Amino acid sequence: MKAMNWLAGACLAVAALSVQADGLRGTGDLGIVVERARGSLQLVDTSKKSVLSRIEGLGDLSHASAVFSRDARYAYVFGRDGGLTKVDLLTGKIVKRVIQSGNSIGGAISQDGRFIAAANYTPGGVKIFDAETLELVVDIPAWSDELQAASKVVGLEDAVGNVFAFSLFEAGEIWVADLSENPKRPKITKFKNIGREPYDALVSPDGRWYIAGLFGEDGVAVLDLWNLEKGVKRALPDYGRGQEKLPVYKMPHLETWAVSGNLAFIPGVGRHEVVIVNMETWEKVGVIPVAGQPVFVMARPDGRQLWVNFAFPHYDTVQVIDVPTRKIVHTMKPGRAVLHMEFTPRGEHVWVSVRDANRVDVYETRNFTKLTEMPAENPSGIFFTWRAHRFGL
Amino acid sequence: MKAMNWLAGACLAVAALSVQADGLRGTGDLGIVVERARGSLQLVDTSKKSVLSRIEGLGDLSHASAVFSRDARYAYVFGRDGGLTKVDLLTGKIVKRVIQSGNSIGGAISQDGRFIAAANYTPGGVKIFDAETLELVVDIPAWSDELQAASKVVGLEDAVGNVFAFSLFEAGEIWVADLSENPKRPKITKFKNIGREPYDALVSPDGRWYIAGLFGEDGVAVLDLWNLEKGVKRALPDYGRGQEKLPVYKMPHLETWAVSGNLAFIPGVGRHEVVIVNMETWEKVGVIPVAGQPVFVMARPDGRQLWVNFAFPHYDTVQVIDVPTRKIVHTMKPGRAVLHMEFTPRGEHVWVSVRDANRVDVYETRNFTKLTEMPAENPSGIFFTWRAHRFGL
Repeated sequence: MKAMNWLAGACLAVAALSVQADGLRGTGDLGIVVERARGSLQLVDTSKKSVLSRIEGLGDLSHASAVFSRDARYAYVFGRDGGLTKVDLLTGKIVKRVIQSGNSIGGAISQDGRFIAAANYTPGGVKIFDAETLELVVDIPAWSDELQAASKVVGLEDAVGNVFAFSLFEAGEIWVADLSENPKRPKITKFKNIGREPYDALVSPDGRWYIAGLFGEDGVAVLDLWNLEKGVKRALPDYGRGQEKLPVYKMPHLETWAVSGNLAFIPGVGRHEVVIVNMETWEKVGVIPVAGQPVFVMARPDGRQLWVNFAFPHYDTVQVIDVPTRKIVHTMKPGRAVLHMEFTPRGEHVWVSVRDANRVDVYETRNFTKLTEMPAENPSGIFFTWRAHRFGL
Repeated sequence: MKAMNWLAGACLAVAALSVQADGLRGTGDLGIVVERARGSLQLVDTSKKSVLSRIEGLGDLSHASAVFSRDARYAYVFGRDGGLTKVDLLTGKIVKRVIQSGNSIGGAISQDGRFIAAANYTPGGVKIFDAETLELVVDIPAWSDELQAASKVVGLEDAVGNVFAFSLFEAGEIWVADLSENPKRPKITKFKNIGREPYDALVSPDGRWYIAGLFGEDGVAVLDLWNLEKGVKRALPDYGRGQEKLPVYKMPHLETWAVSGNLAFIPGVGRHEVVIVNMETWEKVGVIPVAGQPVFVMARPDGRQLWVNFAFPHYDTVQVIDVPTRKIVHTMKPGRAVLHMEFTPRGEHVWVSVRDANRVDVYETRNFTKLTEMPAENPSGIFFTWRAHRFGL
């Protein structure tokens, strides 16, 4: 009996140690940094501004993106090679990895967190997986009757009501898949002739507007997800590469259009400007000249600042715009090739991937002071767990 | 040696069990339900829609509120008796509890999560604590030179830049404490003659506008936290109890004004209506008639629905307003005395406290179906961890 008590005591000590080592901790301040060339992730802590561990073996992570589980414990990473990897942020281990297609361009998680959707180029379509097991729930081929061929799927976004919206590049269509009644047989609404070659899309932070950018012509396609019966409308007729087909070094990312009140701030295509759009009328109401062709225009969570990075040859530069005055209040050159930026949940800090310097920098947003830097191998995307609780990210 | 190996093996088994039992889990889907009479909390899981455990010993929890740590692991609960309790949601235990004043009315957490501020009636003032240790960082007495007396502090809210804003009831002042440079000696900006008897306040979801409701006269006080030099302005001159001093059964809560685009939807005072305000001009632009005097008007996270509960004698009723059409689309009576409602992070569900029925109900917001109910002893406030990453909650 005495021995048993002693054993129990010793075990409790081991258990306590083990709990700490196994990471009894909150997950609201965790995140990942994609190391694209190495096929790995840095698991990071945004409170301590530090790296916790490296997670290896995620395949081709060029252009990789991630979403987070409802409990903010798991990251789902979409790789360019069609890999979908579920990572446990508490143990720093891969839980499951499936090669779900030949070539993928990103994904989304349903409003209720039960389903992961991946958008695929090869073969074109959307596959929807159970978030718990990564078992296939339903495969939605992007077959166009008009084309008699499959299309590449781009701009896959989640919205209110367990809805996924996505665009068909070759077919020029927008589809809305509603999983709320029967996830295995989603109700699909198709919108045709929405414009030539939609190449990316976004959902507004309130989950209402689905906006697809067009590669094949100027303008954007706008779908009101609250009123599907109104159909897709065209807006911003002079938004795009223009008649002269400006040289575009990198088509801007749309997923992160910055919204502040009723205004959206969007990267100009091929032009050195940020375009201001009134979201009530979907009309252009102004531009802000900037240092290069914008790639990401990201609003600090309070909407007061926009942080902008640029395509080649200005990809060494980051500019900060003050929203009320629409003036550039800061310009900096953190290093060659700034690839991505991510704000802490309430925006006091921003993390910046400086790819060629093998570094992630952390800045205080109110005064642009660099607080710290961390080594990372060719870092690209940075994703924090607060995304678990937002739409369209 | 063999014995040691055996011990290690046995301990590993215990450790593994212990890890699971001690809750290696994400914290993004946790929350608390206040059991006001019992002085306890129900620790809840919003994914499983279930109660995990009960946490006892929090003192007087009438009118209690809570904020969450940056990592979404800890809740800080402000009790009416001046108690400030730090609760570990992973272990279900109280970490620390201090009686920080004689009588408290709520609190806030700083943008960076380092500081907890409590607003006090007795003696009037704000105390700011270290979020880690609950040690006092600074005490800000609400002493008014004009009154030569201390005021009760109400409407304490966090905002961008490690700022806390709050109102002095008797003095009719709004103070802004900026902790960004030196938390032990915050820079305090005082605004006087802001109106008679501010009784509650809110910060808009973007952290920009601080709005105080007035008990002693009609109208509200509006402070632009991005432009303190512009001072406090008065708005909504006919918002309040009116000349005839309508009987008001319960002054509405302001902290949760619903914002959708540029419109705010606010509870009418003493009137059976929700008031629509244009936040660009701070003018009333319409009203929506409802079943009683609203207490909480809460926007579903996507801003499409407003859920409204009411003061006596209509506190058995909940109404749902469709924002685009401004029509009431659902009315229900979950039971006598609906005290509070809380949405899941992306709004697919809403949890409702039905105090006298000793029950918390969970509804699907898209079709108003009741999904489940849980027993709870006289439940009042419900708070989920997604609040960790928002302003002014």
